[in-house]
Amino acid sequence: MNNSFGHSFVITTFGESHGVGLGVVVDGCPAGLELCEADIQRELDRRKPGQSRITTSRKEEDRVQVLSGIYQGRTLGTPIGMVIYNGDAKSDHYDDLKDLYRPGHADFTYDARFGFRDHRGGGRASNREAVGRVAGGAVAKALLETLLGTACLSWVEQVHQTKILVDPQTVTLEAIEANEVRCPDPKAASLMIEAILAAKAKGNSLGGKIGFVVKGLPAGLGAPVFDKLTADLAKALMSIPATRSVSFGLGEEATLLTGLEHNDLFVSKGNRIGTVTNRAGGVLGGMSNGEPLWGHVTFKPTATLLVDQDSVNRSGEALTFKAKGRHDPCVLPRAVPNVDAMVNLVLADHLLRFVSADLSRLKKALS
Amino acid sequence: MNNSFGHSFVITTFGESHGVGLGVVVDGCPAGLELCEADIQRELDRRKPGQSRITTSRKEEDRVQVLSGIYQGRTLGTPIGMVIYNGDAKSDHYDDLKDLYRPGHADFTYDARFGFRDHRGGGRASNREAVGRVAGGAVAKALLETLLGTACLSWVEQVHQTKILVDPQTVTLEAIEANEVRCPDPKAASLMIEAILAAKAKGNSLGGKIGFVVKGLPAGLGAPVFDKLTADLAKALMSIPATRSVSFGLGEEATLLTGLEHNDLFVSKGNRIGTVTNRAGGVLGGMSNGEPLWGHVTFKPTATLLVDQDSVNRSGEALTFKAKGRHDPCVLPRAVPNVDAMVNLVLADHLLRFVSADLSRLKKALS
Amino acid sequence: MNNSFGHSFVITTFGESHGVGLGVVVDGCPAGLELCEADIQRELDRRKPGQSRITTSRKEEDRVQVLSGIYQGRTLGTPIGMVIYNGDAKSDHYDDLKDLYRPGHADFTYDARFGFRDHRGGGRASNREAVGRVAGGAVAKALLETLLGTACLSWVEQVHQTKILVDPQTVTLEAIEANEVRCPDPKAASLMIEAILAAKAKGNSLGGKIGFVVKGLPAGLGAPVFDKLTADLAKALMSIPATRSVSFGLGEEATLLTGLEHNDLFVSKGNRIGTVTNRAGGVLGGMSNGEPLWGHVTFKPTATLLVDQDSVNRSGEALTFKAKGRHDPCVLPRAVPNVDAMVNLVLADHLLRFVSADLSRLKKALS
Amino acid sequence: MNNSFGHSFVITTFGESHGVGLGVVVDGCPAGLELCEADIQRELDRRKPGQSRITTSRKEEDRVQVLSGIYQGRTLGTPIGMVIYNGDAKSDHYDDLKDLYRPGHADFTYDARFGFRDHRGGGRASNREAVGRVAGGAVAKALLETLLGTACLSWVEQVHQTKILVDPQTVTLEAIEANEVRCPDPKAASLMIEAILAAKAKGNSLGGKIGFVVKGLPAGLGAPVFDKLTADLAKALMSIPATRSVSFGLGEEATLLTGLEHNDLFVSKGNRIGTVTNRAGGVLGGMSNGEPLWGHVTFKPTATLLVDQDSVNRSGEALTFKAKGRHDPCVLPRAVPNVDAMVNLVLADHLLRFVSADLSRLKKALS
Repeated sequence: MNNSFGHSFVITTFGESHGVGLGVVVDGCPAGLELCEADIQRELDRRKPGQSRITTSRKEEDRVQVLSGIYQGRTLGTPIGMVIYNGDAKSDHYDDLKDLYRPGHADFTYDARFGFRDHRGGGRASNREAVGRVAGGAVAKALLETLLGTACLSWVEQVHQTKILVDPQTVTLEAIEANEVRCPDPKAASLMIEAILAAKAKGNSLGGKIGFVVKGLPAGLGAPVFDKLTADLAKALMSIPATRSVSFGLGEEATLLTGLEHNDLFVSKGNRIGTVTNRAGGVLGGMSNGEPLWGHVTFKPTATLLVDQDSVNRSGEALTFKAKGRHDPCVLPRAVPNVDAMVNLVLADHLLRFVSADLSRLKKALS
Repeated sequence: MNNSFGHSFVITTFGESHGVGLGVVVDGCPAGLELCEADIQRELDRRKPGQSRITTSRKEEDRVQVLSGIYQGRTLGTPIGMVIYNGDAKSDHYDDLKDLYRPGHADFTYDARFGFRDHRGGGRASNREAVGRVAGGAVAKALLETLLGTACLSWVEQVHQTKILVDPQTVTLEAIEANEVRCPDPKAASLMIEAILAAKAKGNSLGGKIGFVVKGLPAGLGAPVFDKLTADLAKALMSIPATRSVSFGLGEEATLLTGLEHNDLFVSKGNRIGTVTNRAGGVLGGMSNGEPLWGHVTFKPTATLLVDQDSVNRSGEALTFKAKGRHDPCVLPRAVPNVDAMVNLVLADHLLRFVSADLSRLKKALS
Repeated sequence: MNNSFGHSFVITTFGESHGVGLGVVVDGCPAGLELCEADIQRELDRRKPGQSRITTSRKEEDRVQVLSGIYQGRTLGTPIGMVIYNGDAKSDHYDDLKDLYRPGHADFTYDARFGFRDHRGGGRASNREAVGRVAGGAVAKALLETLLGTACLSWVEQVHQTKILVDPQTVTLEAIEANEVRCPDPKAASLMIEAILAAKAKGNSLGGKIGFVVKGLPAGLGAPVFDKLTADLAKALMSIPATRSVSFGLGEEATLLTGLEHNDLFVSKGNRIGTVTNRAGGVLGGMSNGEPLWGHVTFKPTATLLVDQDSVNRSGEALTFKAKGRHDPCVLPRAVPNVDAMVNLVLADHLLRFVSADLSRLKKALS
Repeated sequence: MNNSFGHSFVITTFGESHGVGLGVVVDGCPAGLELCEADIQRELDRRKPGQSRITTSRKEEDRVQVLSGIYQGRTLGTPIGMVIYNGDAKSDHYDDLKDLYRPGHADFTYDARFGFRDHRGGGRASNREAVGRVAGGAVAKALLETLLGTACLSWVEQVHQTKILVDPQTVTLEAIEANEVRCPDPKAASLMIEAILAAKAKGNSLGGKIGFVVKGLPAGLGAPVFDKLTADLAKALMSIPATRSVSFGLGEEATLLTGLEHNDLFVSKGNRIGTVTNRAGGVLGGMSNGEPLWGHVTFKPTATLLVDQDSVNRSGEALTFKAKGRHDPCVLPRAVPNVDAMVNLVLADHLLRFVSADLSRLKKALS
C-alpha cells in the first residue's frame, strides 16, 4: 500500500510533521545481522535539520528509539519498529494556512484526495517524512555492507547554475562530507553555498541534481520485466519529495549517441566478465552487470518562499501568501542521505529476491 | 512479483520472443465495462512489427485471443486472460548466439541471474514482451475513457539530433499518427525518418525521446509517499526496455529556475481550482492537480547492430559479433503505444485506489 | 510480508513480549473517519492481562499512544501509527530458558527458522503480539460501524468439556461481557470458570472454542477465487496463536447432511433476497449473501504448564522443564477481542475492495 | 489481487467454465528446474471430469498447453504461462439459468458483487476453475520434490456417514489411487462409492472430508505472525470451492485434551530434534517442526441437485428449479489433486521465503 515500499525487504513509514511522532517498521530483514541504534542514528544525523547555515534552522534532535526486532546487537528476523518523536514544532506558524493552498505544495492535492488535512507543517507531505525512510535505509545499508561490502554513495552535483562532473568511479564519502552542501568538489561547493545563501537572503530557493553510485554489486540483481533495477530505483527516487527526473548512466545524453557509440563492449576482467566503458550505468535489461551502478536525480527549487505569492484558498478565493517559519532554501544537501536510503532499500530488496531466482543458489542455501 | 504490475488494477505478463506465445492476465478490472477483442487489437496493431520501412521487417500478426473475463461485450470483473501466439520466428538466426553475450543486451545479466537462458530472439528480454503490456494497457484505456473521458497521448519528440518542442496542451492523435515515426511535426518527422534510414543502411541505430500527456484528470489521483503518481509512472516507464531517463513537467530544466520562477500559482478556473502555468507537469506532492499530466521518457539507441563488435562468450573468451536477423534501427515509433499502455495502467490503478481514500466517496459508492 | 495483513486496508505489527514496545501501523483507512485514542484503548482493555482471576496476573497497562494519522478526532487517510510500551516484564523469569525448548512452544521452530531468538517471554511468539492486531482491529471496527452499522461479535462457546450451543442471530454483547470468561450462557460460564480454576490449581491448562457472527453485511463482500471471504477469514483466524481449526456455518457437521438437507433456499425478504435457513454461514462462493456471517475457531490448551515436562535443549540434550512466571491457564477469554479484531480487519479490507468491483459503484463514487 | 496466490512463488489464474479457456501464470519459480508438459498433464488428468462413474460425465480432455517459461525441459525463471481450452461445454443447458439463483450456488452473490455475470456453467465459480490451480500446483510439486524430496499426499477420509481413521505417517499414494474415490481403505472406499451412486440415483449429493500429509519437511518453514504455515494453508484450502472447515493435527479434538495431554514432548531423534507424539500436526508457532505436517479439510455436499428446489430469480420472484446437465454428486474424489496443489503451492512459496530469513543461509546462497 501507499506507505510501504519493497517486496521482500519492506519498510512501512508513518507520521506527520507536527504530529506526535514519525517512524518506520522494517520487515524482512534476515536474522543475525549486527545492528544497533547508533547505526540508525548516524544516518538520521546526516539528514537532521539545523545542521548548517544553508539548511532550515528548525532544531530537531531526530532521536530514534528502536522498539523491537533487535536483541543483543543483532536483528531477530522480526520487524524492526522505530519511532522518532517530534520536538521543536512551531505549529502556530501554520494557523493561517488551514484553508490556504500554498503554491508548489501538496495542500490542494491532499484536500482533493482526502477531503481532510493536517495543515501544520505540511502534515505527511513534509520533508520530515524522510526520517522513516532514512531509518529504514540504514538497516538496508547494514545488510548490503555485511553481505556485499558495499552501499550507495550520493553527492550534490548541481545547485542551480553551478554544475560539476563527478567521476562515479573515484568519488569518496570523505570528499562528499567535507562540506555542508555535500558536493565533492570544494570549489563548486563554495559557489553552491554562496548561491544558496543569496537565494535565502531574498526569500527565494534553488534546485539541483544529485548523483549516486554503488560499486561492487554482483551481476544479476534486478529482474527482467516490471521490477527492473532501474524501474524500482526510478520509483524509489521519484518518491522523494521535490524530484523532477531520474536517469541512469548517460541518461538523456544517450539519445545523442548512435548504437555504435553507446554500446558498452564486453571484456574478460580477470575472473569476471565486465564492460570496457560504462555508459549504461551498470544495468543491462534491468539487471546489474557487475559494473558500478550510477545515475542522477534532479530536484526542483523548494516551493516555500518568504516572499508574496498569489494563490487561492479552499473556496477558490484569491489571496496573497508569504511563508513564515523555517525552511530549507535548497533541499539537496539534506536529500543526499535520503537518496542513499532509497537506493540501499531497493538493493537490499533485490538481493533477497536474487537468491531464489536460480535453483543452484537455492540448493546452496538449503545445504 | 517480477511479472506483475499494479496494486488494484494488476497485469501479469508472460512469454518469450520465440516461445509458443505471449500474453497477459488483467485482474481487478471492474465488471460491466464495454470491451471487445477489437479494442485490444487496435493497440496491438499500433505496436506490431513490419508496419513500415523504419521498423523491423519481422512479420507478426500479433493477433490477440481473449480467453476469459469478457462476456457479451462487457467485462465480468473476473481476470481477462489474453494470448498472442508467436508466428514468424526465425529461431535459427540465433543458433550462434547460445553462448555469446551481445553488447548492450541482457544475455549476460540473464545468465548471471538465472544460470539458464532462452537465447532465441532475446527470450523474455525481447521487445516482443511488450505485447502483454499493450494488451493490458488497452483495458486500462477503456476504463479511463469510460470513467474520465480521457487517456494517455504519446509522441516521438526526438530522434538522435532531430528534436522538437511539442505543446502537450494542443497535440492531437491525428498529428501523431499522420506519419510512421509518430512525430506530430511533419517536417521533423521527415528528418527523423531520413536519419533512421541512414542509420539502418549502416547497420547502426538511434535513440531519442517520447513525450506524453493526459488531459482531463481529476485532482487527487496518486498518493502522498511511496506511491506518488510520478513515482509509479517512473517505474512504469523505466520498465520499458531501452529507457534511460524519465522526467515530469520541466524535468531537468526545473533545476535552472529559482523557486519564484518555478512555482505554478493557483487560480480559480470556473468551478475548479487550477494553476496559471503548469511547470510541475500536473502533479503536486505526488498527486494530480487537475492540470494536464505531462512528461518525457528517453531511449538509448537499439543495442542490435549489423556491424562487427567485440565481445565475449559465456567462458569469457573474446570474439567478434555481428547481428543477423531483422531489428528496429530505432525503437521509438513502436514504443509510443507501449508508453500509452504503461501510463494508462498506472492511472487505472490509481483511479480505483482514489475511490477509497475519502470516507465521503465510499459512502456515495455504497449508497 | 510476514508482519502485514490485508490488501487495501493493511496492518503491519511489530514488537516482542519483553522488548521496548509493540505496535501497529494501519494503512489504507479512508480519511474523515471519526476516531480517537479511547476507541482503540477500549478494545485493548478487553484483551489486557490481569483483568480477572482466570487470566494471567501479569499487570500490563497496555496503554496505546497514537503517533500519527488522526487529527482533531478524525483520520487523515495517512497511516495510523500506534505504540504500546512494555511495562511489567519479568525478564529474569526466562533466564534459564535461553537454550531450552519448551514443549508446545515456538522456541525450537524460531531457532530453526532464524538461528537467533529473543527467548524472553516468548519474544514475538508471545500472545502479547496480539496488542497490535487488536489496536488495528479497533480502527477496522470504527470503519465498519460507520459505513455498515455493524461489526463482529465473538464469544466463548466451549472450554474443555463444557460446551453450549449459541444462536448467532440473537447473542448480545451484554450477555458476552457479563462474565469474565465471555460465555453468553451464565450457567455454562460458571462451569467454565470452575474448570479453568481447577486446571490452574494443578498447573495444567484448557482449550476450547470461540464463535463469531457479523450481522447486517451487504451481499457481495469477498471475492470468487483465492480471496474468498471464508479463505481470508480462515487465514486471519488461524494466524491467532494456539488455533487448531476454523469453520463456517455448520462446519464439519455439513458433511453429515445431503445436498437436499444442506442447501439454503432463496426467498424474497422484503427489499432484498435472502435464504430461509443459514447453514452456509452467510457466504456463498466466497462472497457474503446478506445473511449473518458466522463460524467458529478452536484453540488448543495453553502450552505453558507449571508442572514438570520432559524436553531437550538447543543441543538436543534431554532435560526436565517446569514453567515459572504468570500465564493464562486458558487463552479463550482474552482471545475474544482478538477474534473480533481479525474478523473486522478482513471485512474492512473487503469493503474497500468491494467498491471497485462494479463499474456502477465506481461511477457513483466519482460522481 | 483476487486471482493471484502466493508471495514469492505466485500463481495467477483465469477462466470461466464455458468461456474460451482457463489457465494460469506461475511467477517466481527458480530457473533450472526440470519440468515438462507431461508433469503438468499428470496432475490435470487426476482432476479431469469423466474419469469414473462417480464423477460428472462431462468429457473434457483438459489438455494443457505450456506457452512460456520452459525451454529444453527446464524452467527459465520467467513466468510459466499455461492454457487449457474449453471443449465439451453444453452452454445451452444453462439458458434458463440466466436470471435464476440456484440454491447453494454463487449466482446471487456474483450478481451482488459484480452486477453482471456469465451464468453458463457457473462461470468463474465453476469447479473447473481448479485446472489453473492444479497446473500451477504441479510446478510447485516439482520444486518441492527436487529440493526436499517430498510433496503433499491427500486422500478421502470421509464421505457422508462413512468415515475412517488414516495414519498420516503410513498412508501411500498407491493405496489412495487404488480406487476411484481415492480412499486408502478399500472397504470404506466401496461403501463410499455405493453411497455416492445411491445419492446420484436420487439426484442428491454428498460431502465429506479430505486428509493430507507432507513428510520430510525441514523445520522452520512458515512465519511467526500473519503468515503462519497453518494460516496460509487455511486460506489456501478454504479457497477451494465447497469447503467448510480446515484443521491441523488433532483439530477440534484438541479442545478435549488438557495441556498436559496435548503437548508434544521434544526428544533428540538422531541428528535432529523431534517430538514423541505429533498432535500439533507438524507446526509450532506457525512454523514447521520437522515432523509430518498433517490436517483435514471438509466439503459440503454438492449444491447442484437433479430435484426440484424452491428459489427466486433476479427480481426476487419465487420459482422452482431442477438442475439439468452433468454434475459431480460428490466433489471429493476430484478435489484430492486440488488439495495437493494448494498445499504444495503454500510450501513452495514458504520454501523460497525461508532462505532469506537467516543471514547464514543467505551467505551460503551467495557464496
